[in-house]
Amino acid sequence: MRNIRLLLQYEGTRYQGWQRQVSTEQTIQGKLERLISRMCGEEVELHGSGRTDAGVHARGQVANFHTDSDMPVQEMLAYMNQYLPEDIAVIGVAEAAPRFHSRLNAQGKRYEYQVINSPIPDVFRRRYALEVPETLDVEAMRRAAAHLVGEHDFKSFTSAKKGKKSTVRRIDEIAIRREGNCLLFTFRGNGFLHHMIRILMGTLLEVGMGKRAADSMPALLEAQDRALAGPLVPAKGLTLMEIYF
Amino acid sequence: MRNIRLLLQYEGTRYQGWQRQVSTEQTIQGKLERLISRMCGEEVELHGSGRTDAGVHARGQVANFHTDSDMPVQEMLAYMNQYLPEDIAVIGVAEAAPRFHSRLNAQGKRYEYQVINSPIPDVFRRRYALEVPETLDVEAMRRAAAHLVGEHDFKSFTSAKKGKKSTVRRIDEIAIRREGNCLLFTFRGNGFLHHMIRILMGTLLEVGMGKRAADSMPALLEAQDRALAGPLVPAKGLTLMEIYF
Repeated sequence: MRNIRLLLQYEGTRYQGWQRQVSTEQTIQGKLERLISRMCGEEVELHGSGRTDAGVHARGQVANFHTDSDMPVQEMLAYMNQYLPEDIAVIGVAEAAPRFHSRLNAQGKRYEYQVINSPIPDVFRRRYALEVPETLDVEAMRRAAAHLVGEHDFKSFTSAKKGKKSTVRRIDEIAIRREGNCLLFTFRGNGFLHHMIRILMGTLLEVGMGKRAADSMPALLEAQDRALAGPLVPAKGLTLMEIYF
Repeated sequence: MRNIRLLLQYEGTRYQGWQRQVSTEQTIQGKLERLISRMCGEEVELHGSGRTDAGVHARGQVANFHTDSDMPVQEMLAYMNQYLPEDIAVIGVAEAAPRFHSRLNAQGKRYEYQVINSPIPDVFRRRYALEVPETLDVEAMRRAAAHLVGEHDFKSFTSAKKGKKSTVRRIDEIAIRREGNCLLFTFRGNGFLHHMIRILMGTLLEVGMGKRAADSMPALLEAQDRALAGPLVPAKGLTLMEIYF
């Protein structure tokens, strides 16, 4: 049986996230599974590397599926892009090793959060960015970010329900760069909890606005209390950039 | 009476173009005039520099209106952006000389036409670009473009009905540059006829695909026959970048 690996791009605006749901047709996984099953002439299950939330975009989502179809990968690429809606695209198709699994083999992920940091709107970016007209202290945000890098229990930074699962994760990099009217925040790590990046962003933005001290991060991690962290920022600014294997 | 000059940005996807129409609410001019009239407490007429067609975008449209309102320009900017839909933005407001007129005083315009020149889609660009998977001969398109620069009768390159109006225009520059998976075509000139850039683009793309010779341009200009030029390419790839005064 073949194992096919996909590299995917999507604009999340219209979707209820990656994960297939019984209640809605509008999920990325659901759309793709129906199309791939039709293409292969058999029921196919698609495994994604990360379950992006409703409204989150992707430039480098990875997914894989098993099939007995003998369609060449280049034909699969053309077939899928012909039938996919305008806001989902397959940008790569390859044969994978039999045991390759997009989620279980992922070693790390990189996300980007985009902020339009200007009082002047930008209609070509605002579908993919949060608008923050206030002046932001980038150096203070960088100092706060430095406290968050490393292996920590991120319980203060997740909406996940209390459970037995570990909330320890390792962040390898939080980088902030200015690009024109935008601030781009890069998060690279071995995995992220539910809503973790959007709560980290809400917290960093409060630091940038002077509402919270950069060196209050260690105590915030220590507290393990979601109520003490900053707000959950909108999904539309977040993009899954790359999966590392 | 004050004369107020606006710098505007819009994504044209949802609109029937710039120009107010009796039959539809969905024009950029119509949306703006209703909002500005409400803001100023009087009926206002808005003059745009160029009448962009349905689906065409703008990053630097200029428009002006006269008013007796004493609202400061910074307040106007904030007011308009608060009430405008997500795909229209005012990015500048300034007092203009009493006789300034956006259309009559415009000396030139710059447009950009974006082509995704790859068999791989790009969901983040395709709202603003035409997808051309075929390999294109950029040097041949540049040679063809060189024949089009200068003052010519562009009757072969317009959908405008036959009339008394001159179809002579001056193109100052047609530049083609590659940027990642895209080809960006810049058109700068003293004015463009109805559909002129999109028909020039359709013609240049045929040259790029080897369907038409680069040095057939002089004969095509000479013929003054729309039927001999290339197809009208889609509006979504076209953006009004700048107006020169």
